Amino acid sequence: MNVNGKHFRTIWIENNNNGIVKIIDQRFLPHRFVVEDLTSVGEVAVAIKDMHVRGAGLIGAAAGYGMYLAALHAPWDEFFDHSMKHAAGLLLAARPTAVNLNWAVQKQFEAMEAASTNAEKVAVAYKTACHIADMDAAHCQMIGEHGLPIIEEISRKKAGKPVNILTHCNAGWLAFVDFGTATAPIYAAFEKGMDVHVWVDETRPRNQGASLTAWELAQQKVPHTVITDNAGGHLMQHGKVDMVIVGSDRTTFTGDVANKIGTYLKALAANDNGVPFFVALPSSTIDWEIEDGLAQIPIEERGAEEVKYMEGLCEGEIKKVLLTPENSPAANFAFDVTPARLVTALITERGICKPQKEDLLRLFPERKR
Amino acid sequence: MNVNGKHFRTIWIENNNNGIVKIIDQRFLPHRFVVEDLTSVGEVAVAIKDMHVRGAGLIGAAAGYGMYLAALHAPWDEFFDHSMKHAAGLLLAARPTAVNLNWAVQKQFEAMEAASTNAEKVAVAYKTACHIADMDAAHCQMIGEHGLPIIEEISRKKAGKPVNILTHCNAGWLAFVDFGTATAPIYAAFEKGMDVHVWVDETRPRNQGASLTAWELAQQKVPHTVITDNAGGHLMQHGKVDMVIVGSDRTTFTGDVANKIGTYLKALAANDNGVPFFVALPSSTIDWEIEDGLAQIPIEERGAEEVKYMEGLCEGEIKKVLLTPENSPAANFAFDVTPARLVTALITERGICKPQKEDLLRLFPERKR
Repeated sequence: MNVNGKHFRTIWIENNNNGIVKIIDQRFLPHRFVVEDLTSVGEVAVAIKDMHVRGAGLIGAAAGYGMYLAALHAPWDEFFDHSMKHAAGLLLAARPTAVNLNWAVQKQFEAMEAASTNAEKVAVAYKTACHIADMDAAHCQMIGEHGLPIIEEISRKKAGKPVNILTHCNAGWLAFVDFGTATAPIYAAFEKGMDVHVWVDETRPRNQGASLTAWELAQQKVPHTVITDNAGGHLMQHGKVDMVIVGSDRTTFTGDVANKIGTYLKALAANDNGVPFFVALPSSTIDWEIEDGLAQIPIEERGAEEVKYMEGLCEGEIKKVLLTPENSPAANFAFDVTPARLVTALITERGICKPQKEDLLRLFPERKR
Repeated sequence: MNVNGKHFRTIWIENNNNGIVKIIDQRFLPHRFVVEDLTSVGEVAVAIKDMHVRGAGLIGAAAGYGMYLAALHAPWDEFFDHSMKHAAGLLLAARPTAVNLNWAVQKQFEAMEAASTNAEKVAVAYKTACHIADMDAAHCQMIGEHGLPIIEEISRKKAGKPVNILTHCNAGWLAFVDFGTATAPIYAAFEKGMDVHVWVDETRPRNQGASLTAWELAQQKVPHTVITDNAGGHLMQHGKVDMVIVGSDRTTFTGDVANKIGTYLKALAANDNGVPFFVALPSSTIDWEIEDGLAQIPIEERGAEEVKYMEGLCEGEIKKVLLTPENSPAANFAFDVTPARLVTALITERGICKPQKEDLLRLFPERKR
């Protein structure tokens, strides 16, 4: 998508591939646009852990590139495999809830297995990393195409009046390599000239909505309004939300959706007010092993300081302010699980389906066992 | 309640009543404890509008004292009544959703009507203001007594294990003259030696939970943990909340509850997880005219800057940081309405009742028409 009118992806290697992975360092958005160079798998792991990059697809793509950097710098001997396993461990420990992390790492191992020499493995890892990123962008674009008719239909029913779409967190292009998932249908509708307006949940504690989603919508010139996470229910009660679209960090094959903390509350409000609640996701985030999302998906707990402090721009500098009494404890659960019963439909790169096993298997028959 | 071990109310006139109303200026909490002197109804209106004081009961008490200051400084002639009407208008315009504002102003008019001279009216206004404040404190204490058995029962069922109570916004003593409403049963249980733990919703955009509720619980030494507004649903899904208690800015006689934005989302989550959801309120916040809270209670919209900026302590100073892109619009609805069907019971100064007309009229039979 665009940054100041120029096309960018969130992660890339420049043509003269010199072992430098470039990322948009999202910690400084929306206030500063910073590109960071990553030259080792350790730096990639830190970038994932400390959220220079975040979001299901982008974490997967970063892990793919991280494995490539690990291969590039691995010792040229029998320790290669050991070194790659160590790299995988580093990456997997960075964010425990993100299923794409494991998915990308496994893709790399599978691809490298076919290669016989270490040099070949490096070449394969490079190709695979680029392929993971390209596929992520392509899948997001297809999610946009599949989601577009939903917005078109609401727009028709409203006789062209603005379609009000609420989204939580950032499942925009900043969370993927390009296009985004929740935002992809919105961008597609906007490009077709439809009148859309996005309610952007702030998304405490890390404010990915206020800082990232608002920023990327502004860069794309899509009309939007930032609201607190508390406001969505009230808006739905008063008919000011036509649909909700969120992303997902992990979706069970039974349709339970792990996504940013607070998603469940919006799903409850949508359900209570007859507002359709869509989850847009590439199939790489589907967990085909887990049946009960609530009981089985591990929920990452992050540091209390993310709740107690808030970062923002103050007199031209990015500063942190303390919100709570200094000694009050705080808890910081990063995700929650929205049960399938509250989800209207899943929008995947292969099409739309109900959040249930039979429907998902119809779209992904290769998963039948 | 206590501040650094010393007893305080949130608003008072010192014994040598010299026309100075003292308030805790809550804008600086939790970082600084500031007492402000108010000497005119204009200053009181500003203190209400700009939230030096806030919360249903405290706004009512402040309005009572504001009317007294207005009477004290009103011209000693036939313009007295006109001047008092002007003062009432000033106060009523300060916060449109707070029903106590109107209630306290009307109480003052009724009281003054019986007085024949202007001097008598001033004396009556003083007495009435003090009475409003005293009654507020007394009612909160009684709410504590009526709510206590609910916590005792949960504590018994859990065999003394900590009772986890979630609250939203600040319906603590800082929102009233003393004791608070939602907090009153908690303080009562804590004083009786029960093991209680409070999940404190941050309460964006103004963070009354993180800044005020956490502060007053800390001052009272009640165990608590600050969480984002997004987290409550997840905690309830995992059995980590035994009950919810919130306050109310206005409750219809049919049991619909207007309270801080986001309350409705917590009520939905409580309902979805079988967690009892209590609303503690003095009867002064009951609106006996309005039947349909959702359709009829006006919801105050406040400035976008409260959403776009966040205030906190930075390097020893209170500073504001910008969270969103500078030009992104933001909307700021201050309250939402929780329909009666989601409320387990109301806790009033006269006892506990179901959120429905018949039950409320049983407690307040003088309201029957």
